[in-house]
Amino acid sequence: MTYEFKGWAGYDKEAATGGLKYEAFEPKVFEDDDVDVKILYCGICGSDASVLAGEFGPIEAGRIAGHEIVGEVVRVGPKAEGLKLGDVVGIGAQSDSCLACEFCTGHKEQYCATPTFTFGSPYARGASAGQNSKGGFASHWRGPAHFAIPLPSGLDPAAAAPLLCGGVTVYTPLKRWGAGSERKRVGVLGLGGLGHMAVLIARAMGAEVTAISRGTSKEGDARKLGAGSYIATGADLAQDLAPHARTLDLVISTINPPKVDVAAYLGLLRPEGAFVTVGAVIEPFSFHSFPLITGGLSVGGSNTGSPDDIRELLALVAAHPEALPWVQKWDMGQINEAMVEFGKGAPRYRFVLANTGNGARL
Amino acid sequence: MTYEFKGWAGYDKEAATGGLKYEAFEPKVFEDDDVDVKILYCGICGSDASVLAGEFGPIEAGRIAGHEIVGEVVRVGPKAEGLKLGDVVGIGAQSDSCLACEFCTGHKEQYCATPTFTFGSPYARGASAGQNSKGGFASHWRGPAHFAIPLPSGLDPAAAAPLLCGGVTVYTPLKRWGAGSERKRVGVLGLGGLGHMAVLIARAMGAEVTAISRGTSKEGDARKLGAGSYIATGADLAQDLAPHARTLDLVISTINPPKVDVAAYLGLLRPEGAFVTVGAVIEPFSFHSFPLITGGLSVGGSNTGSPDDIRELLALVAAHPEALPWVQKWDMGQINEAMVEFGKGAPRYRFVLANTGNGARL
Repeated sequence: MTYEFKGWAGYDKEAATGGLKYEAFEPKVFEDDDVDVKILYCGICGSDASVLAGEFGPIEAGRIAGHEIVGEVVRVGPKAEGLKLGDVVGIGAQSDSCLACEFCTGHKEQYCATPTFTFGSPYARGASAGQNSKGGFASHWRGPAHFAIPLPSGLDPAAAAPLLCGGVTVYTPLKRWGAGSERKRVGVLGLGGLGHMAVLIARAMGAEVTAISRGTSKEGDARKLGAGSYIATGADLAQDLAPHARTLDLVISTINPPKVDVAAYLGLLRPEGAFVTVGAVIEPFSFHSFPLITGGLSVGGSNTGSPDDIRELLALVAAHPEALPWVQKWDMGQINEAMVEFGKGAPRYRFVLANTGNGARL
Repeated sequence: MTYEFKGWAGYDKEAATGGLKYEAFEPKVFEDDDVDVKILYCGICGSDASVLAGEFGPIEAGRIAGHEIVGEVVRVGPKAEGLKLGDVVGIGAQSDSCLACEFCTGHKEQYCATPTFTFGSPYARGASAGQNSKGGFASHWRGPAHFAIPLPSGLDPAAAAPLLCGGVTVYTPLKRWGAGSERKRVGVLGLGGLGHMAVLIARAMGAEVTAISRGTSKEGDARKLGAGSYIATGADLAQDLAPHARTLDLVISTINPPKVDVAAYLGLLRPEGAFVTVGAVIEPFSFHSFPLITGGLSVGGSNTGSPDDIRELLALVAAHPEALPWVQKWDMGQINEAMVEFGKGAPRYRFVLANTGNGARL
């Protein structure tokens, strides 16, 4: 092997705002079921910025974020099943699990009790146990083949990157709650990175989509993304939603302000409708049980998806290329500038870093 | 027709505590799709007592409660489909709907925008429009054949009565949330009338059942009803539930104290588990979104079921007679005494009134 692992490392909370340093790092030990991946593209997700800023706890020195990774397999362990040199693969928010429990064997690895997230999270298996994962803001990624999903041929690898975390995070609840099948009328609350993918993916699944966003500035984009309806919210949420009462079967909430008025959004639901959040909110959800009972409604949450969910989503988008995320590419060498712009809310709707040194195209 | 409609009428809030008066009443006009039913048995449900006591609003003078009715068809309108003289039928909490909207034609009549409940609730169709429904604490019932469901032969008509409201209220969410199929481990919160039926029915559906109740006084009964496990709760709910964390796929909550600590009960759920209430609670549900997200959990509610749900439940219990509700029979002539005992929480687990004058047996 003639490559060195290098990455954009964070050392303090300025990491999210221009303070990442490019340096060589030691990856975890190479296990028999591992692959090495030469990183071509990596999306920037809100949780990268949050973790680098220390919002979820003190930042590990030398942390390398990034968990929407697309790259080329350059080394294959003897037990790395299903992959070969040269395959283009994607890695999302989860990089390992026990692979033995009922959830792992049931293709729901996201519920494993010992998950490894894609950066700053300890591996729990074999000789890698205790070594922290390193993410995709780097030249290479190393990890179990189980979590490196081949991209369907013909899928744009740069635009596909955000599907690996943001995309599957909204696809999984859309699928579980029957978007486009038993629940036809889908609302997407919030039009950021996740929300714009939720609109695109729900459309590809055959749903009629209503985008719900503050003000009217994103209405044009929402309609281009495929939303047939748009609800602009403002100072009086209940009043803004009232004309749309009982019009939706499912609302996927991608927002995470300190508080979400779930009770108001429940008014949008038709009988047996569901409000499902993928955005973690600090203040508790609070609503009365009576509308839940009379309407047969539910309020749910959803985490990222499993490798199988990612596989399904990539196949869906390969068959519906109009559902590819809208991305702006940045040379990974300009990551510090990109993070600052990201922090200003500039993406329309996802930034993807391109490792031009590894052959990626801008 | 040689019968007179007579019933136990309530005039004030003492109606629930011994003040019902037996008197003749005028039923709604007989429509072409109506049947008259000679009432044999009628269960006493918590909402009968609540409504008679005025808890849901001022009591209509001459209100006749009772909505778990079993009786014999004694008159059949020319458009009363599927029923003939002598059929033994059951009527639950809903007595009419528009029969034309998407919910009615989709066999989810409980979501119709113009439902008629079985007592004190105006009919909305035809010549009956505006006339109030009269319930089952009476000699006869009159209403649309659509809401009078034939009992399978061989089913004990007295013990079956509570299935018409209480039973279907718990059966509908058990079915919708996959009890015994995708959700094997079912918790039943509260062991009153509804809770005891939830244990029996969930068992008949093939679920492993855990009963959750205050103290240990009902543990013996819970196990006889079919619960494999029992959780006794006391002063410290979180501590009492902790040993059972992540053990259940579904919790059906039948309790309705002023406040329910949903967050504590969510801790009982395995990934993708659901907490579903059929008990209306005054204080809002309040819980953090984070466990919902990481566990893929949901919090739902459920109303009574549709005629089809009732039909399915009756067939299920006919095939599993061990799932018949546990009832104590009272002569309907003693209804005032029965209501007083009911108010003390005496049923183990459902009181059923028997119209001995109509041929019912004690």
